[in-house]
Amino acid sequence: MIPEARELHHVSVVVGSIDDSLPFYRDTLELVPGPVRVITDQHVRVVFLEAPHTRIELIEPTDASSGVARFLAERGRPSLHHLCFVVDDLRATLAALAARGVELIDREPRPGAEGDVAFLDPRASGGVLVELIDRASLARPHTS
Amino acid sequence: MIPEARELHHVSVVVGSIDDSLPFYRDTLELVPGPVRVITDQHVRVVFLEAPHTRIELIEPTDASSGVARFLAERGRPSLHHLCFVVDDLRATLAALAARGVELIDREPRPGAEGDVAFLDPRASGGVLVELIDRASLARPHTS
Repeated sequence: MIPEARELHHVSVVVGSIDDSLPFYRDTLELVPGPVRVITDQHVRVVFLEAPHTRIELIEPTDASSGVARFLAERGRPSLHHLCFVVDDLRATLAALAARGVELIDREPRPGAEGDVAFLDPRASGGVLVELIDRASLARPHTS
Repeated sequence: MIPEARELHHVSVVVGSIDDSLPFYRDTLELVPGPVRVITDQHVRVVFLEAPHTRIELIEPTDASSGVARFLAERGRPSLHHLCFVVDDLRATLAALAARGVELIDREPRPGAEGDVAFLDPRASGGVLVELIDRASLARPHTS
């Protein structure tokens, strides 16, 4: 049986401009965009586009100070950035992963654009960045 | 309403070694792997891991001749490679996209690991590689 805890919440794409990139995802892929939100403390603008059962997140850095801004500068064009999976109890999951020696960026949940989140260190997967999001927090997204 | 045609079939990750990368996706993310398959004519080994409603595909180049081998050499580590969405009639979708001027790598469906597929040119999205897979073909995967 596939655990519901491992549902793919979203795949994120870092883009230089949401205005430039949104039309492809909306008009060509026919995904349904939500509102564009500014996450001031993370120096990004984000928009989620709904697909059945999951979402594509476009992240646009608003200045050069963030990790996503450096990622975009390195790649030089819109690029796939991370995978985010839903877990039922993020705090307990992080404790269990840490006890097993899985490298974590965040050892405690922190507020993300869509709920309480934590990032695993890309070393844990060999290179791919993975985010976990707490299921119970999905109803109360971060709005700063 | 979200069109069922735009379901995310899988997200693919190019890896240097499925043997090395699989444990993270199976044991840490708790995704459920299928069999590892060799796609001889594409010079890759692939494995799909099931998540609820979607899949993660790990692709390992078996020699240096393929596009995914060059992608891996450029990135130097496992990296997110493409998104694949299900469409109801791939041939008709490709014709409609071409008529709208969307850049395509494949103008006709061709056999892929999981069914009949076509890739959009990354220029269509500004950089992200997108694959489309024909829903009716999902029951008869490529086995060469």
